[in-house]
Amino acid sequence: MAPESLNPHVSVDCVVFGFEFGKLDVLLIERNMEFEGCEYHDLKLPGDLVRKNEDLDTAASRVLSELTGLDNIYLKQFQAIGSPTRLKRLPRDMVWLKSINHPEEIVVTVAYYSLINIDQDKASNFTLQSNARWYAVSEVKELAFDHLSILHQALKVLRTDLNLNPIAFELLPPKFTLRQLQQLYEVILGVNFDKRNFRKKISNMPFIIPIDEKQVNVSHKPAQFYNFNRKVYNKTQKNSF
Amino acid sequence: MAPESLNPHVSVDCVVFGFEFGKLDVLLIERNMEFEGCEYHDLKLPGDLVRKNEDLDTAASRVLSELTGLDNIYLKQFQAIGSPTRLKRLPRDMVWLKSINHPEEIVVTVAYYSLINIDQDKASNFTLQSNARWYAVSEVKELAFDHLSILHQALKVLRTDLNLNPIAFELLPPKFTLRQLQQLYEVILGVNFDKRNFRKKISNMPFIIPIDEKQVNVSHKPAQFYNFNRKVYNKTQKNSF
Repeated sequence: MAPESLNPHVSVDCVVFGFEFGKLDVLLIERNMEFEGCEYHDLKLPGDLVRKNEDLDTAASRVLSELTGLDNIYLKQFQAIGSPTRLKRLPRDMVWLKSINHPEEIVVTVAYYSLINIDQDKASNFTLQSNARWYAVSEVKELAFDHLSILHQALKVLRTDLNLNPIAFELLPPKFTLRQLQQLYEVILGVNFDKRNFRKKISNMPFIIPIDEKQVNVSHKPAQFYNFNRKVYNKTQKNSF
Repeated sequence: MAPESLNPHVSVDCVVFGFEFGKLDVLLIERNMEFEGCEYHDLKLPGDLVRKNEDLDTAASRVLSELTGLDNIYLKQFQAIGSPTRLKRLPRDMVWLKSINHPEEIVVTVAYYSLINIDQDKASNFTLQSNARWYAVSEVKELAFDHLSILHQALKVLRTDLNLNPIAFELLPPKFTLRQLQQLYEVILGVNFDKRNFRKKISNMPFIIPIDEKQVNVSHKPAQFYNFNRKVYNKTQKNSF
């Protein structure tokens, strides 16, 4: 990519969350560099400078598609971040920017997040770039630049969205048990619920509907399956003005 | 401002809504220019390029403070917009950019919105720049660049926020009538409510509490005053996970 076709002042960064039962992952890029005479490996969010002929959403989709081989993943823009010192936190970040011929100027980044069910079909089509891997969100303690702060911000937005929108049900199979639903909320919100309180809340949600089917071939008492009914859900949303 | 202290690729634009009983306004800047031999006047959103030593929120606050003389107005970032053609919609926009020595490059803009009660105290401290004025949102049909689309997007976000957050009550006096509350929702959402249906919805909101006081000195039947109770409101919000 010739430098003149890039906007040197604007980048996109993508926080791609991967949900698996039991944990929440994030897709990170390993960065290998030399710093003060030593080899150095650390992690960063996937991102890139925006090209002059593309808009921000296109840039974010391109980054994700180059990284995973997947198109059509829903990405939500959640924040533009433009602190003048955001790239200058660590000396090794500056060295790395020079090594990739980055203009090392002020770069405003526009952050996107995405949520993928790693267990479901899509994942089988994943062909991650060799330097990209899933990491458990709870174990990520340090990232390049201001990327840890962007990750935390994305997590906050994801948690708010989980409460406001029916995204939970896009991550579950069409028929699910209340245990699966509880586990999903626990993993994403990072909390544990009391089973009885959780089921009490669920019983106030008329769009979660028991179906005439139970688990089979399980060693414990077979659990009831439930559906998410979007029509009923949409009706409940009309209570606001 | 010397050009080298500006980031030529990133701007902020501010959609400042002004609420008055009866209508919703937006603060716009008159742009005077010559185009194809004629004088031309049109309107734009307040905005500016971001300086290299300031972050985005600071830039937005600066624009608003220069425009109104007011500091500490709450501004919410709601969208970064980066279509490569966003400044090139109208030939006269390009002429104007040249006339102000604007680099005329790709500019990603970060859009903010704010909501001010024009009737309340604050407004008395307003000293608008000579080229800035309030315009009724419903009457704005054309703006420079992509600013009309930014205004519409801001209005959509404001309406969503009005339903999700208790901002309505920050615009009302501490004691208010249900008629005032209905009018506020009607003005901002741009709809008319049936009085009975509206009051039925209100009766499901335990945080809107009648107080022991009625209007005085009115020619009609004195209306009951209400309070917004934030403690009760916060409790009702705990119903999500």
